[in-house]
Amino acid sequence: MNLISFHLQIILFITVIMTSPVSSQNIVEIPDLMPMPEEISVKTGEFRLAEDFTIGIKGEAGTRLYKYATMALRRLSGRTGLFFRQDFITPDKNESSPDLLITCNRVGEVRLHEDESYTLTVSESGIIIDSETDMGALRGLETFLQLLNADADGYYFHAVVIKDSPRFAWRGLLIDVGRHFMPVDVIKRNLDAMAAVKLNVLHWHLSEDQGFRVECKAFPKLHEMGSDGYYYTQDQIRDILKYADDRGIRVMPEFDMPGHVSSWMVGYPELASAPGPYEISRRWGVMDPAMDPTKESTYNFLDRFFREMTGLFPDEYFHIGGDENNGKQWNANWEIRRFMEQNDIPDNHALQSYFNKRILELLTKYNKKMVGWDEIFQPDLPTNIVIHSWRGKQAMVDAARRGYQSILSNGYYIDLIRPTDHHYLNDPIPEDSPLTDREKGLILGGEATMWAEYISHETIDSRIWPRTAAIAERFWSQGDIDNVVDMYRRLKIIDLQLEEHGLLHNKNQLMFIRRLCRGYDTGPLKNLIDVIEPMKGYNRGRHRNYRQHSPLTRVVDAAKPDALKAREFRNLVDRYLETDKKNEKTYDEIKKSLILWKNNHTDFIEIIKLSPVLKEIESLSEDLSTVSEIGINALIYFQNGWDTDEKWISESLVFIEKAKEQRGQCELMIIPAIEKLVKAVSGR
Amino acid sequence: MNLISFHLQIILFITVIMTSPVSSQNIVEIPDLMPMPEEISVKTGEFRLAEDFTIGIKGEAGTRLYKYATMALRRLSGRTGLFFRQDFITPDKNESSPDLLITCNRVGEVRLHEDESYTLTVSESGIIIDSETDMGALRGLETFLQLLNADADGYYFHAVVIKDSPRFAWRGLLIDVGRHFMPVDVIKRNLDAMAAVKLNVLHWHLSEDQGFRVECKAFPKLHEMGSDGYYYTQDQIRDILKYADDRGIRVMPEFDMPGHVSSWMVGYPELASAPGPYEISRRWGVMDPAMDPTKESTYNFLDRFFREMTGLFPDEYFHIGGDENNGKQWNANWEIRRFMEQNDIPDNHALQSYFNKRILELLTKYNKKMVGWDEIFQPDLPTNIVIHSWRGKQAMVDAARRGYQSILSNGYYIDLIRPTDHHYLNDPIPEDSPLTDREKGLILGGEATMWAEYISHETIDSRIWPRTAAIAERFWSQGDIDNVVDMYRRLKIIDLQLEEHGLLHNKNQLMFIRRLCRGYDTGPLKNLIDVIEPMKGYNRGRHRNYRQHSPLTRVVDAAKPDALKAREFRNLVDRYLETDKKNEKTYDEIKKSLILWKNNHTDFIEIIKLSPVLKEIESLSEDLSTVSEIGINALIYFQNGWDTDEKWISESLVFIEKAKEQRGQCELMIIPAIEKLVKAVSGR
Repeated sequence: MNLISFHLQIILFITVIMTSPVSSQNIVEIPDLMPMPEEISVKTGEFRLAEDFTIGIKGEAGTRLYKYATMALRRLSGRTGLFFRQDFITPDKNESSPDLLITCNRVGEVRLHEDESYTLTVSESGIIIDSETDMGALRGLETFLQLLNADADGYYFHAVVIKDSPRFAWRGLLIDVGRHFMPVDVIKRNLDAMAAVKLNVLHWHLSEDQGFRVECKAFPKLHEMGSDGYYYTQDQIRDILKYADDRGIRVMPEFDMPGHVSSWMVGYPELASAPGPYEISRRWGVMDPAMDPTKESTYNFLDRFFREMTGLFPDEYFHIGGDENNGKQWNANWEIRRFMEQNDIPDNHALQSYFNKRILELLTKYNKKMVGWDEIFQPDLPTNIVIHSWRGKQAMVDAARRGYQSILSNGYYIDLIRPTDHHYLNDPIPEDSPLTDREKGLILGGEATMWAEYISHETIDSRIWPRTAAIAERFWSQGDIDNVVDMYRRLKIIDLQLEEHGLLHNKNQLMFIRRLCRGYDTGPLKNLIDVIEPMKGYNRGRHRNYRQHSPLTRVVDAAKPDALKAREFRNLVDRYLETDKKNEKTYDEIKKSLILWKNNHTDFIEIIKLSPVLKEIESLSEDLSTVSEIGINALIYFQNGWDTDEKWISESLVFIEKAKEQRGQCELMIIPAIEKLVKAVSGR
Repeated sequence: MNLISFHLQIILFITVIMTSPVSSQNIVEIPDLMPMPEEISVKTGEFRLAEDFTIGIKGEAGTRLYKYATMALRRLSGRTGLFFRQDFITPDKNESSPDLLITCNRVGEVRLHEDESYTLTVSESGIIIDSETDMGALRGLETFLQLLNADADGYYFHAVVIKDSPRFAWRGLLIDVGRHFMPVDVIKRNLDAMAAVKLNVLHWHLSEDQGFRVECKAFPKLHEMGSDGYYYTQDQIRDILKYADDRGIRVMPEFDMPGHVSSWMVGYPELASAPGPYEISRRWGVMDPAMDPTKESTYNFLDRFFREMTGLFPDEYFHIGGDENNGKQWNANWEIRRFMEQNDIPDNHALQSYFNKRILELLTKYNKKMVGWDEIFQPDLPTNIVIHSWRGKQAMVDAARRGYQSILSNGYYIDLIRPTDHHYLNDPIPEDSPLTDREKGLILGGEATMWAEYISHETIDSRIWPRTAAIAERFWSQGDIDNVVDMYRRLKIIDLQLEEHGLLHNKNQLMFIRRLCRGYDTGPLKNLIDVIEPMKGYNRGRHRNYRQHSPLTRVVDAAKPDALKAREFRNLVDRYLETDKKNEKTYDEIKKSLILWKNNHTDFIEIIKLSPVLKEIESLSEDLSTVSEIGINALIYFQNGWDTDEKWISESLVFIEKAKEQRGQCELMIIPAIEKLVKAVSGR
């Protein structure tokens, strides 16, 4: 479906449900919302925003909604510069006839399946948000803020009726703080952004081979010896939990076991399946250390550990990881082998299953539901565990057929630097799902996963956002909201709104560029970075020997996933070759970009002279110049319908192929477009 | 003194103390340090940085230095992109023959007058930092990082011998979190930046009419009712104190009394000199509420309050404010008048002096030294208090003559948006000081003051930095380091280095501009903002009715103090009119800028159409266009020596005068240069 048919569909939709005539001007004003609501009905008229604007709350609302409504008022003031008279919205200073009236029936609980539905009505005379719980009102307030619009006369909200509720109850973001620690403010600003796009689960990956990140009172050597001093105190954790709760977001902790535990073994080597001593791992990958599942002392340790941690984290779900245990320590330990023989445990997979059953008992004792990566899926575990699918969707289908609930992360690995649409079109329950409706009901939702091998507190935001806003739409909105062109159009708008929360996903790029250039002459590097992306998938680590303390401040870190300028250029070339064939304006636009890139290298080499860190991409910059020149020639040939020289084409394609090579773990993202231009000339 | 003579002076200095011949190439490489060290001797050769670079520590060093050295290694890696093999520097993993060897004799105490001296020697074979205390080593590490240089072959440190120690022991920054609360991460990143420029006191202004910001266990209604929920828990305060201590920075708390206390009275109206109830103040200015100094219950309250707070804050000094008590509540209370009569207290000033003596007793009991604003200076107080001068330097002189120690903030009010050189040239002990050497010794140093009427967590960094780096130099470096041109040259370099600490002083401007423009077409507003500044002094609040919750997201907030582009343009015009008279290149450069500004308005009005928040500066933009056109004409007249039209000149000057008017609380900063051009034409 292309953009036009998508818009037509919405227009038709509006026409059907419209209660009053809509002028042609109104039709184009489809609100730029993300995630798109379940039902939207655009009306005539608008509510104009003025400085006497007030918000009031009715019904059974707790402090959460009052605080959130006050924040919404501040954000509205921040965007519009309007000096609202209302300062804090509190029960004792509630407005009797407010412009925005919020009503809710009860204070919700921040737990799975809580009611998050709301209706939002904007008319000329006022705005109403209606919800069962305060959680629904929070979601409605975010939609309300996205509806803000402006014209020459001022700010306004277009008249509209929205009825909304989520498609999936579990809409998460995993943040790995084990591999690289993330300070409290990083977590907080990401919680703000999550709330803005209606995500409701922070999956906090708190321990790894490279770091144990929680203060543990029962076993203090966990954080004292396993974290290099980078851990959250329990007070900081409680502060974050409160912050999340204020935004209607659950926080599920993960302590990965029996593998991914090197950092535990530094202080407690007796937990391991091989003798110590152990060190915090500085490398990436799958490590050998694994807990010894055959010793009762392991379970005694975990019992005390879970008692403390289940008390700290109130969420009903508790993630125990369970992934990537390579079994080497188990194989090498004859006592473990003997235990397996004596207990009829045929292989390591079964041994891990035994381990899982034992910890499930412990978690059940502390009233927690166990979640684990799809390795834990074993037919003999009870069906009240939740399978977290990462290796493929089949595990999810299999699990559902056997009655297990599941959440999907396969396809949402944002650390792999794939473009937004790749994740956006990945549906937890695709149209061709082989599952029955009852089985489908077991699929709770999904989570984007921000693994932290190659991110720091300076880059994490640009890896999560804005792509995760599109994933959030996948989890919240109906499955047929799947137009990629319109997603990208709205994403560009939402992207800037997300900056309101202090996210650095846009700001830090120029900061990196200033640092990399050692000065203010940032243009040439900016031009280059605009059209490159970090390597995809797991390739980055294959091209450079990364350690935990390696710098994450190079060009590859300044470069963003799904580079906007490069994508828009590729789209432009597609349009030129397909629909706008030989259109003069499109031709000029393409040519202008190509000339900029062709000439950029000359300026760039001047900057490299004083910035040795940029040397690694010198040849990439040179290749950009050369492929752009090829592109210009191809464009001129094509536009004029000139005869082609086969030799030039072959040589160009050979060069283009070579230019696809990574340099500094970066890739040129305009190459496919130039390749298309050259092939168009040759008629290939 | 101009730049050339300054450089000559340094070169002469180097020539004198040089131990080996220096090539002409070396002479230009005066290190870009801020603050400038006490003695610097540039040598031949350089130390080249490679991936096998290591840091080692010898002597009696505590964890503070090991942590700081590890951070320095990370920052070096971050700037250069080098993959150092060394991960964490710890006593058990210390390098035996490191490239950078740090030795220190003892672990310093973070207290006034601790030894912060160090010597830093760079030679081809290695780098040595030598210091009495780890605090000196910290300062030396910052100098070391500022010395990093680069050429086409890579990164290096120029050979140098630096002997350094501070001129003043008290080098502070006040952050007011009472008027607008600042989250923990704001304080932390500013502590990092303070350490980078060798500031060593955070003066934390924790209570105001508009908010009480500390969790108080003895009197919980202080933070519960006086903060709108925006306060630091004691755990957060301890976390910040540790963070500061790790950087060798003292933290002195201020609880302002007997005035500036409205927020205290919300929960404890019995403290006041007039009956309640009280509300948190939302306005700015001097408020009436004052503690009742005649009731013993006030001192009982303060005794318990101080007992708790002096335990929380370990610094030896405790600031009790004491400023701006307007006396209205005291005058209106007949019991207070009677008390004064009975106790021979002639006026309110004497009554406050009585109050001060009482709280001095309490603070002395808890082993604290009392600091207060210059209002507390009363001859009958003992000389172990410290006078904090804000209203003028005379108070400081008077205090010193009577044997009181003092610190200076008058002239360092960075909230007043004055240019950097205004603060830079303000010396706590100017050359013409009338004081004796002994009296001069009583002047401990100074503090930049970041009052928070018009700042938020989004703008505070741009108000503090980079200007405060120049103030830091004033406090650390010798008094004869006072060349403004060279200060600005170095400031521009240090400015970018400060971004390493997560400061938003540069990043947030474009973010604001994107938000204000509601999109990516930021050029026209950026061009305008480059040449405007917020109103100076106390004028901003006179032109708009600001409240605590008013938006701080408008153009005036995106505009920066001491706007770089405008300053450079003014300097360029000065050079053109004075030294480069009619120089073609300078002429072209000036003209290019003027043409940009002249044409900018046409694009800008397109953006206003969709961004009503920008309407308030529409006429400012138009005036920029018009004055730029005037400038272009004046420039052409002057360059060609053409006859002038008196009428045009008069009309132009009238228009220029009018264009000086604020719009949106902003001022055009290129006007003086254009005025000069016009006057140059007329020969005025």
